[in-house]
Amino acid sequence: MPQNQETRMSTATDEFTTHNLDPRIAEQLSHNEAGLVAAIIQQYDTKEVLMLGWMNDEALHRTLTEGRVTFWSRSRQEYWRKGDTSGHYQSVHSVSLDCDGDALLVQVDQHGAACHTGSRTCFDDRDLHAEQAV
Amino acid sequence: MPQNQETRMSTATDEFTTHNLDPRIAEQLSHNEAGLVAAIIQQYDTKEVLMLGWMNDEALHRTLTEGRVTFWSRSRQEYWRKGDTSGHYQSVHSVSLDCDGDALLVQVDQHGAACHTGSRTCFDDRDLHAEQAV
Repeated sequence: MPQNQETRMSTATDEFTTHNLDPRIAEQLSHNEAGLVAAIIQQYDTKEVLMLGWMNDEALHRTLTEGRVTFWSRSRQEYWRKGDTSGHYQSVHSVSLDCDGDALLVQVDQHGAACHTGSRTCFDDRDLHAEQAV
Repeated sequence: MPQNQETRMSTATDEFTTHNLDPRIAEQLSHNEAGLVAAIIQQYDTKEVLMLGWMNDEALHRTLTEGRVTFWSRSRQEYWRKGDTSGHYQSVHSVSLDCDGDALLVQVDQHGAACHTGSRTCFDDRDLHAEQAV
């Protein structure tokens, strides 16, 4: 997200728009209207998809440099380093950007449950019973 | 998405808002501002994450009932049944909704490349070189 005054005023607080992300990475991102990219979180060894979260540029910077996954919480409008409250943290193994720059694939080692419900993944409990291809 | 007139006028065309999705599923969805939910596409056996797409209610209905994955194309503002043009279609194995209703995990059998660049997945080419956890 460009750091000019107009953008800053129209999006959010200084906390949201100030970031330390490498500009060579930032320029590859295609943010949504809220200044975010989607982050798919996958267990690195079993390849389970654990959850989908959202990152702004600073959350991605922290994820790339701290060894722990940080999201931007849309509901609370604040940074959310997964596990700081629950203990269910995510150790970073790799981060890849997709072809059009609006989604990240973050491979992690998940400690404990990924889902706030206590389930291993956020997708465990609501199978929509698709008709399979014949 | 509620089908009242106000919503229809404020979002998009009749094609976008008219849907056949089971109301018991539709009521569980938490759409973004554009009336969409994110759809993570995963190869069912190798567990590779292939791509991230977007679905409105009708795209999800078609995906659940046709055995093939259909997205809503945000750039073209039209339905996009993956593979109709490229031949690289996705056969549906399962569809699950996440805990807060704004993301789907779609397990598929991907025929050919998932990415429009010709890569197997959309995440193959841009590793962001994260520092790993110690």
